[in-house]
Parts: sequence; structure tokens; C-alpha cells
Amino acid sequence: MWFASDNSGPAHPAVLDALVRANDGYSAGYGAEPAMARVTERIREQFEAPQAAVFLLGTGTAANALALACLCPPWAGVFCHRHAHVEEDECGAIGFYTGGASLVLVHGPDGRMEPGALAAAIARKGGAVHQIQRGAVSLTQATEAGAVHSLDHLRALADVARTHGLPVHMDGARFSNALVALDCAPAEMTWRAGVDVLSFGGAKNGMLGVEAVVFFDPARAWEFQLRRKRAGHLVSKHRYLSAQFEAYLADDLWRDMARTANARAARLAAGIAALPGGRLNHPTEANEVFAAFPRAAHRRALAAGAQYYLWSFDDPAGQTLDGPDAGPVSARLVCNWATTEAEVDGFLGVLRAEKITQRA
Amino acid sequence: MWFASDNSGPAHPAVLDALVRANDGYSAGYGAEPAMARVTERIREQFEAPQAAVFLLGTGTAANALALACLCPPWAGVFCHRHAHVEEDECGAIGFYTGGASLVLVHGPDGRMEPGALAAAIARKGGAVHQIQRGAVSLTQATEAGAVHSLDHLRALADVARTHGLPVHMDGARFSNALVALDCAPAEMTWRAGVDVLSFGGAKNGMLGVEAVVFFDPARAWEFQLRRKRAGHLVSKHRYLSAQFEAYLADDLWRDMARTANARAARLAAGIAALPGGRLNHPTEANEVFAAFPRAAHRRALAAGAQYYLWSFDDPAGQTLDGPDAGPVSARLVCNWATTEAEVDGFLGVLRAEKITQRA
Amino acid sequence: MWFASDNSGPAHPAVLDALVRANDGYSAGYGAEPAMARVTERIREQFEAPQAAVFLLGTGTAANALALACLCPPWAGVFCHRHAHVEEDECGAIGFYTGGASLVLVHGPDGRMEPGALAAAIARKGGAVHQIQRGAVSLTQATEAGAVHSLDHLRALADVARTHGLPVHMDGARFSNALVALDCAPAEMTWRAGVDVLSFGGAKNGMLGVEAVVFFDPARAWEFQLRRKRAGHLVSKHRYLSAQFEAYLADDLWRDMARTANARAARLAAGIAALPGGRLNHPTEANEVFAAFPRAAHRRALAAGAQYYLWSFDDPAGQTLDGPDAGPVSARLVCNWATTEAEVDGFLGVLRAEKITQRA
Amino acid sequence: MWFASDNSGPAHPAVLDALVRANDGYSAGYGAEPAMARVTERIREQFEAPQAAVFLLGTGTAANALALACLCPPWAGVFCHRHAHVEEDECGAIGFYTGGASLVLVHGPDGRMEPGALAAAIARKGGAVHQIQRGAVSLTQATEAGAVHSLDHLRALADVARTHGLPVHMDGARFSNALVALDCAPAEMTWRAGVDVLSFGGAKNGMLGVEAVVFFDPARAWEFQLRRKRAGHLVSKHRYLSAQFEAYLADDLWRDMARTANARAARLAAGIAALPGGRLNHPTEANEVFAAFPRAAHRRALAAGAQYYLWSFDDPAGQTLDGPDAGPVSARLVCNWATTEAEVDGFLGVLRAEKITQRA
Repeated sequence: MWFASDNSGPAHPAVLDALVRANDGYSAGYGAEPAMARVTERIREQFEAPQAAVFLLGTGTAANALALACLCPPWAGVFCHRHAHVEEDECGAIGFYTGGASLVLVHGPDGRMEPGALAAAIARKGGAVHQIQRGAVSLTQATEAGAVHSLDHLRALADVARTHGLPVHMDGARFSNALVALDCAPAEMTWRAGVDVLSFGGAKNGMLGVEAVVFFDPARAWEFQLRRKRAGHLVSKHRYLSAQFEAYLADDLWRDMARTANARAARLAAGIAALPGGRLNHPTEANEVFAAFPRAAHRRALAAGAQYYLWSFDDPAGQTLDGPDAGPVSARLVCNWATTEAEVDGFLGVLRAEKITQRA
Repeated sequence: MWFASDNSGPAHPAVLDALVRANDGYSAGYGAEPAMARVTERIREQFEAPQAAVFLLGTGTAANALALACLCPPWAGVFCHRHAHVEEDECGAIGFYTGGASLVLVHGPDGRMEPGALAAAIARKGGAVHQIQRGAVSLTQATEAGAVHSLDHLRALADVARTHGLPVHMDGARFSNALVALDCAPAEMTWRAGVDVLSFGGAKNGMLGVEAVVFFDPARAWEFQLRRKRAGHLVSKHRYLSAQFEAYLADDLWRDMARTANARAARLAAGIAALPGGRLNHPTEANEVFAAFPRAAHRRALAAGAQYYLWSFDDPAGQTLDGPDAGPVSARLVCNWATTEAEVDGFLGVLRAEKITQRA
Repeated sequence: MWFASDNSGPAHPAVLDALVRANDGYSAGYGAEPAMARVTERIREQFEAPQAAVFLLGTGTAANALALACLCPPWAGVFCHRHAHVEEDECGAIGFYTGGASLVLVHGPDGRMEPGALAAAIARKGGAVHQIQRGAVSLTQATEAGAVHSLDHLRALADVARTHGLPVHMDGARFSNALVALDCAPAEMTWRAGVDVLSFGGAKNGMLGVEAVVFFDPARAWEFQLRRKRAGHLVSKHRYLSAQFEAYLADDLWRDMARTANARAARLAAGIAALPGGRLNHPTEANEVFAAFPRAAHRRALAAGAQYYLWSFDDPAGQTLDGPDAGPVSARLVCNWATTEAEVDGFLGVLRAEKITQRA
Repeated sequence: MWFASDNSGPAHPAVLDALVRANDGYSAGYGAEPAMARVTERIREQFEAPQAAVFLLGTGTAANALALACLCPPWAGVFCHRHAHVEEDECGAIGFYTGGASLVLVHGPDGRMEPGALAAAIARKGGAVHQIQRGAVSLTQATEAGAVHSLDHLRALADVARTHGLPVHMDGARFSNALVALDCAPAEMTWRAGVDVLSFGGAKNGMLGVEAVVFFDPARAWEFQLRRKRAGHLVSKHRYLSAQFEAYLADDLWRDMARTANARAARLAAGIAALPGGRLNHPTEANEVFAAFPRAAHRRALAAGAQYYLWSFDDPAGQTLDGPDAGPVSARLVCNWATTEAEVDGFLGVLRAEKITQRA
């Protein structure tokens, strides 16, 4: 019953096997190994983007910050949702990597910027030299609140960006989860919708720790490589990254894992919504459930060893189990490719105070 | 009728005379000239702060950014009002000087953070390593909306900062205007209220271009000097800065100029508030007037050569004279030491559509 | 015959097995997994440093740059050898991570700074505010030229640093190779000699990709964690790093691998030195051989598929196989734990133009 | 007898008068005042560069650093002489402003890089992603050692830069002194020789404190303005800068002042060279004298109140009056527009132990 994060679970055996096989013998490094060329080719195929430049590195924070540093000059702002990962969970990485650029926070429900709010935020910046200039737009797909932008929503946001000549970055830490949710082609959710650079997540979807950055226009590729190197994100024994990604993309493994995670989250969400005193705080459209349920249920779950975070975007410090039993408390619960139906059902049973018979 | 900014007016003759006198002969530079020691001594006396470290430089943006860079590490946030100069008018200087620190924006009417809103903003940051940490609090006195924090308000904000161990910076670009408005001692409005570092403005109050940074605790003085030097803000022929400041502080010139500017603003505000269709958008407590009045009055004023900005914090791009005549449009009008009663009255007369008989 | 780099070889099976085992089930991340506590404890024991703070990350460049950013303020210089990795191979990472600090280059044969040259370099910096200040000293052990500082040499350099109050960083990308070369305790080669922070290498000695940063004084530990996070070097699925390091330290694996690599390098060096026209450019004291031998021998080796770099520190662009056959050309050849005696002997045989009978 | 620096002397009365006149009435600021347009026009005429973009700011360090930040990306190096001001006297400003770029130091006598040494330094950088890339070349005219590059030398250096596609910056803190020494047109010494951006000094040649940055290709002008603003170097009451520069350029004042300063330095150099035990350490080609003379002469001069620095580039800490009387000690002596022949002759008399009769 481990729902703390999608990075708490194991890597998929196929990914691990590929990594073990990659250990054989000697190899060029730093991305010059043959597997990296295959990964690039495979991503180009999957995204129908024959010119795309593809780079691998170890964390999503690095992927986002390095990508945005290539898009946004130091004197400009990145427009993003006020609960975006770049704002809430990267300890100022964008400011560091860009040389002092700002995040300009935009509102909207469920982690999605409203196009009108984005347009208004952009209109307030730029112009005279005294102001922060307009740098880039960063979207998160799936959002930090577990929702997925529709293709129409993505295109509307990208249109606002394009109107102002701004490049668009997509934080796709949970790209795969969103993709299978929309059941669309990768190209539709990225460059055809107006996305210029993608942080294509891996660690949250069954890999040990590798993310890709995909530039649909390769003009910034050399700059990215220099920034990656001087940030210490160019890995010498790079074959272990490319081996993971190759396995990820083979036989649709990435989509299969995401489908499983999403299905588990849907099952979990439905179960919580059906609880007396249960409710969903945000729609469950990918693999994260944001929900509230009674304190007593929380206490039972935690006593039974369940792992998850008490969590409310609007009241981050306010979620606590202290206080009278009846009140609902908000939480975040995340599923991953390894989450089983039995775990979900067992957890729901605990919430409902059923007698637990057997859980592994 | 030039109300565009308090930096549009001339320097006071006493300041200019002092600068001319300072040109005589040879001198040590970089702050080693004798006048700088006198300026430091005089500021220490005026602020009842015998340990204070005092530095001069050329702009308020540099004063704010260098001071805050000494207080706030790169991975932290500066808590400030959402309309603070550091946010709206410095093109990201804080991000640049700190190495990527963030501004965390706090709400409150009239450019004053509400203590509760400040506390809530601080509570949302810090903690785990994933988050931006808590860096410093920056207040603006007088505020960007022409208001002045009461001593109680200042102390309440500083208390919130102190509770979290955060140092307090005061952007005092219009410090003198606020000081004479409160009619208090400089110490009361600064270190006794909890301020650690002050940007003590000069250019907006009758100097050619010099600001002081005052560290009430000199522990950061050497760091400040190094930051100032490598930023190119350590002036070689420094005597021209210290000469200005010495004249500023002599014979209460700084307070006298601020009193004049405030009185003119009060006269202007009263006149606009009394206009049919006129209203004040923010209280006029220092030398800036934020007011709305009918389009027709604007048109007359601008046709008569008046200089000021159409301005609304809440709708920065929305103030325009296009449209039907009757509607009110918001503006900012700023007085300085050289503003005369005749200029104010002449301007008001134009707004009232009086026949202008004679204006210099 | 792959001598291009010690990061070209495979990870040791024991390390890989540990990583595979670590994949089992769910785990806390970001260093909160139980294995990280064990790694810290084990390093403290090995280094006889019960207070040491230990952090893991993915690359040596990141380890060096993050460690030095904690030691050296932006307005200071890091004193290092002119051929140090931080100067030659990190694309300006120190400048990036420190916010603009400088590298001050110091001469000395075989990649070792001369203590007198270090003292002179330090004496030239610091003092007035116009100058770069004195920040930190960074040593490389083993050096980039394949040499090893004696304990006396280390202490002499650290003494110079201490005289000026400067902290000492050791780039230990090949720490293990140096340690077994000196056959001393880790404490002797680090904190007892005056080292404050160690980049403790792993990737070049049989791991997939993990380095430790060891702060012997933990005062900077929180700052390091914040810097690591905002640089995107805090890995979510951190168990894969700690598992590697735990295996590395178990059963003296790290020393055993380094001993093997060193022994192979010694064999290779002896063989080349004995060649007609062969000579060593630097002493072979760890696992790298810097040597020159005739062009014809190079051509035979490369034709036979050998992998290594033409290399001369003093003439980096000048090593080429163009030109008359007889002249010697300099090269770097690196051994790792997996290098076999047969590979070395086979390579030497090719250089000597022996008939190759059988090589795997 | 004040030879400490050319920024120790007064501003020229014509410059001061212009500044006083500029104080009259109200004015737009931030460079929008009419005088700035005239300064731009005048510089374009003087430099025969009708497209040049011109900006003013307060210090030479800021001029150099902001200009180079527009030319050199963070991951590259600026090639400059090892005694350049950017290396020796700006406390790491280039690292700060560029976001961590490096200075790559090049040797050559008298503060002039040798073209061959520059080419070799450039050849050592760039290429693979591991290396610092090639950013820009920065020349100093006149040099920090008081010499002046010939036009041929300038062109040779610029040719090396152009061969590698590198832009050329000229630190012209003493541009005027070099210009009159060569008796050439400003265009010849700048863009016709291959210079892309010039820091055109003022403070060292009779102004209170203003420098121009001249981009002969205006493509970077907007970036420069944003960088200047966020660095706090965009002055609000900008008319005081433009007024100075307008006076400077009028009636050849800038050249006249430089000619006087150079003539005084030549007189001083000749006098010292003729002393028993006197010698010049570098040729005196502009307004600085680098010379050695006996300790006893130094003692007499200092006792008589002369101001100058003991100075040797090769032994910066080693110049001291301690020790036996006879030995020569090196010094730097700088003349400015206000230096009189009487001062020079009086000083030489003191060195020669003549009886001083009357000095003002």
C-alpha cells in the first residue's frame, strides 16, 4: 500500500534486464554509445519528428531547468502554473540554471493554466527595459494535480504563447500517463500542439532514473549539450541511460506501464469517492489521486502501513490528523506500473474499516 | 507641470554646489576620500547606530539587489509585496544578483504587505530540500502606491520575519518622504522596528544620483563591498557621491526637500479628490498621488504639456484615453522638492478647465 | 585493448548485482532509503570520521562543482593545477556552480602543484576589494597526469592552504587508485592531511555511475543538499546509487579493483618504457599511463583496434600520426579493474610488432 | 605630486560646467533626454560608424563586464592578457556578469598579447563539449602597462580572433590616451581594425564618472540594455551622464586632455630614465609610467608627500622600501589632464634630491 510517489516503486524488469545486458564489455560513453543513436531514432519515429534532438540525463529537475535555460534568457520570465513542479519542487532550479530568470505564476484549476490567465500574465510583462521580459511558457502534462490537458487546451495555451513569440516547454514527468489518457499520438500532444521542447519523463514510469529532453527544433542542441556538461549532467557511462530508454520504448512498454498506473489510480479514486465522507479534490485523469476522506480512515490506513502524503495545494501546511475524528483530510495517492489491484482494494478496504484478511 | 517621476526634477542647488566644491584638486577614491568618513559618521548619528556600515552607489536597483544578495542565499526567496519595485521595475535584478533567488509575492492594499499574508507566504516556503527556502523580507517605505507603513505596521512585519529568523530589508527609495510623513526618528523607522539593512534613497529626493546602503549590523560589510566591486558599482571618483550625500544630510536638507514634496502631493491629491469624477486610488501619504479623473481632464492636461503616467496596479495595460469622454482613468503623479504650489494649482486648474492665465 | 578511459569498462558484477537486488519492492527515495544510512556509516568508519556528512550523486563534475561551490564564494578563486579536471574537462562547471568564481592556475610537474607555486599564487590574490579573493584549494589525487601526491606533498599543500585560512577540496575521481598506491588509510590521505571535502570517485573504478561527496566537517551539509537539489542532482530513486556504493565498500571491493587497475597500468608502462623509442612522459603511479612511442607502433595498435587517446598536456593539439614514421607520439592509456594481463600483453605485442596469435 | 591614478584628479571645468547646466529644470531620464541623442550622434560621427549603438554608465568595470556578457556565453572563455584589468582589478566581474565564463590568460610583454600566443590559447580551447568554448577576445588599449598597441598589432590580434569567429572587445579605459599617441582616427583603432565593442573610458580622462559602451554592430543593443538595467547600471537622472559626455566630445576636449596627460608622462619617464639607478620597466606610450629607481629616491618622494604605488606586475607583493638603500624599487606613476609640468619637474627634483624651493 505504497502510494507516496510513483518514484517509490521498482524499475520494470525489462528495463533492469536491459541495463544488465548493457554492462557487457567496453563502450564509448557520453552518449556516443550505439544505443543512444537507437534511442534517438526511436524517439524520432514515435514522435514523427525526424529532426528532433534527443538528450538523456538523470533527473526531471535537471531536464526542466536545462531545457528552460535554453529557451528563456536571464532577464525574462517563464510563465507556468502556480503549482508547477518548477515552482514548488525544484528549490529554485530555474533561477539557478537560467542565471536569474523568474517564474511568473498563472492560476487555473487542477494544475492547468487558463488560456485567458496566461494571456493576461504575459500582457503584464515585457515592454520597457525596467520590466522582466517574456521568456517562455512551461506546461505540465499530466498536471501536478493529476489532471490532463486536452489537446484543445494544449493548443489554446500554445496559441497564446505563439501570439507573443514565446517558445513552449512541456514538463512531461508523467507524459506517458497523459498520453495514454488521451489515447493520442505523441506528436499530437507535443509539436503538433505547439510544444517546442519536451521533458520526457522516465523515472516516474518504471525506469531506474533517466529522463529525455526532446528538442523538436534542433537549433538549440549544441547549447543544450554545453549546459548539460557544465552542470555535471553529462554521464560518462551513458550506456546505462540509453539502455534503459531503449527498453522503455520497445514493445510499447512505456505505454503499458502508464496504462496500468492510470487504471490503478482510477480504481483508487472511484473507491475513495464512494466512501462515506470521501471526495475527490481534483479529477483523476492520470496516475495520481487527490482526495479527502475522514480522519478515522486516514488513521486506519497509516496504522496499517499505508504510505502517502497528506496534501492540499491550497493549504499545504494545514493537512493534519490532529483534531476531531469526523473531519475530512486531503491526501495525494500515486500509483505506478507495479501497483496491483489487490493493493488498491486492500487499501480501500482499510479505509472502509473492513477486516483485512491477507495482504502481501 | 512635470509629475512623471521624482527623478525628473533637478538636483537641489546645495547638493550641486557641494559636488562642484568637491572637484577641487586631488583625492583618494573608492570611498577612501575624507568626505565618505564624514557621511558614515553623520548617518550613524542620524540613525543612532554607531556600528552601522554605510556604502554609496549610483542607483536604487543596485542598492536593493546588492543588499538583498547579502541577505538571501541563491536557493531562497525574498518575500515582498507583489507591486514592490524589486518585482515590477528592476528587470529581474534580484535574481541576477542573488544567483537565482526568487521573489515570493505577498498581497496587501496600497503596497503594504498584510502581516498575516506575509506569515502565510513564509509558512508555504522552506522545510524540505525540494522547496525554495526562506531568505529575507523586503519592505518598501514609502510604498510603491504612495502609502506609508505606520511604525506599528513595520514592527508587525518585522516580527513575522524575526519569528522565522529572517532578516529584513527596507527599500527606502522614498525613505525621506516616509520619515517626515511619520515625523519620527530614523532609528524608529529602521533598526528599532526590526530593519537590518536599508536602501536609503537619494536620487528621488533632490540628489543627482546616489543612494546609500546602511547595514545596521556590519557583519556583512565586507561581503557587500566585494559584491559592489564585482558588480561595477564601486565608483573610482567616489568623492562626487560622498559630496552629494554630505550636503543632503546637512542642515536637514533631506527632510526639508521631502516635506516640500509631500506637501505638494497632498495639495495635488486634495485638488483631484475634489474634482467632479475625481477619486484617489490609494491614500496620498508621501509624495505620490494615485488617482483617477475624467478622460476629458486628462486630455486637457496632456494638451497643456503636463507630464505623468496613466497607471493602475491592477490593470497595468488598461489605462488609456481611448473611449468615451466621461469615464475616469487612473494615473500616477509624483511631486519632488522642486514642485511649486503654482505648478500644482496650475495643473488642477487645467483639470478643472479653468482658463490658464500665467504659468512659468 | 580498450585503454581510452577508465569509464569505458563495465561495472563490476558485484556492484551490478547489488543494484539489481535493490530493485525489489518499494522504497523511500532521495537518500532516505536505509542503504544510504549504511553507506554513510561505512564511509565514516573507513575514513575514521564519525561526523562526516556523505552525499551521493551521478557525476564527478557535479561532485567537484557542488563541493567547491560550498567552499568558495563567487568573488574568490579556487587554486588548482593548470591541468586539473575542473580546468580542462568540466566546461566551466566551477564558474557556473559558484556564481562566477575563478580558477587560479598553479604550475607543477605531473599534475601536482608545487607548494611554493601554490603559496605564490595565493599571495597574488586577495587583499583589496579590487582583486579576486582567496577561496579554496583543490587538489587532484591521483593527478590528471597519472601521478600520486605523497602524504608529505599533500600535507605541504594543505599547510599552505591553512596558512591562508583556505579550505581544501580533493578531487578524488581516482581516489581509490591513489589510496592503494600509497597503501595508507583513507584518513591519512584526507582529513588528517588537511582535506576538508572529498569528491570520492566511483564511476572510474567499477561502478555504473555514482560519486560520493564527503564533508569531514558537516557544517556545510545543509547548504550542499540545497545546492544539489536545485542543480537537479538529488536523485529520486536514490536506492540505485546507495546500493552501488554499499557494494563498492563491501569486502574491500573498491581497493581490490583499484589495485588491479594500477597493476595493469604498471605492466603497461614497463612494457612501453622498454620499447625501442618508448618513454614515459609522467610517472605511472596509479592506473593511467602517459607515454610516447613511435608512430609505427601507434599505427599498428590502432589498426589492431586498440582504443586510446593521443595526448600531451603541453601540446594538446599537436599529437598526430601524420608525418615521418620514426618520431615518437604521446598518448594516454588507462586501465581499469577489468583490464586483463592478456590485454596488456597483447597490446604490447602489437606495439612490438609481434605476431598476434590469439586475443579475446 | 599626485601620481597614484588618473582617477585621483579633478574633472575638467568644461565637463563640470556642462553638468551644472544640465541641472536646469525637468527632463526625461534613463537615456531618453535630448543630450543622449546628441552624444550618440557625436560618437557615430567621430567613429565614422553611423549604425553604432551607444550606452553610458558609471564605471569601467561595468562597461567591460556588460559588454563582454553580450559577447561571451557562460560556457566560454574570454581571451585576454594576463595583466588585463578584467583579470587583475575587477574582483571577478566577468565571471559574475557572464554567468560563469572564464578568463583565459595570454602572455606578452608590456600588457600586449602576442598574436601567436593568442592563437595558441584559442587553439587549446573549444572543440568537445568537455572544454570551455571560445568566447571572445578582449584587448586593452592603452595597455595596463602603459604601452599602446600599434594599428598593425591590433589588426593582427583581431585577425586571429576573426579566424576563429570570435568577437573582439576593447577595454578603452585609456582609449583617448592611446588614440592621441597613435594620432589616428577612432575608426582606425576600433572597427576598421576589427573591434566589435568598445569600452570608451571617461573617468580616467577628466570626467566625473561616465563611460560609454559602443557597439559597432547594434545587433546586441537590446540585450545590452536589459543587462544594464538588471545590473542597476541604468541611471535614472541620466542627463548628468550625457551632459558630461557631450562636453567631453566638444571642441576636441577629450583629445586635448589625453595629449596633456601623455606629454606629462613622457616628461616624467624621461626624467626618471635619466636618474642614476633609474630605468623604465615598460615603454611609456600613454599616460602611465612604470619605472624603477633607488630606494632613497622613493623615500624622499614619499616624505615630500608624493602619491603613487610601488608596483611590479611580475612581483606584485615584492615591491617594498624595506631593505638596503641602494636597490631600485618599481613603481607606477600616472599623469592626468591636470598634471602640470611644474609638478612633474618638482617630483623629479625630489628624486634627484634637489632642494625643493616652492611647490603648491
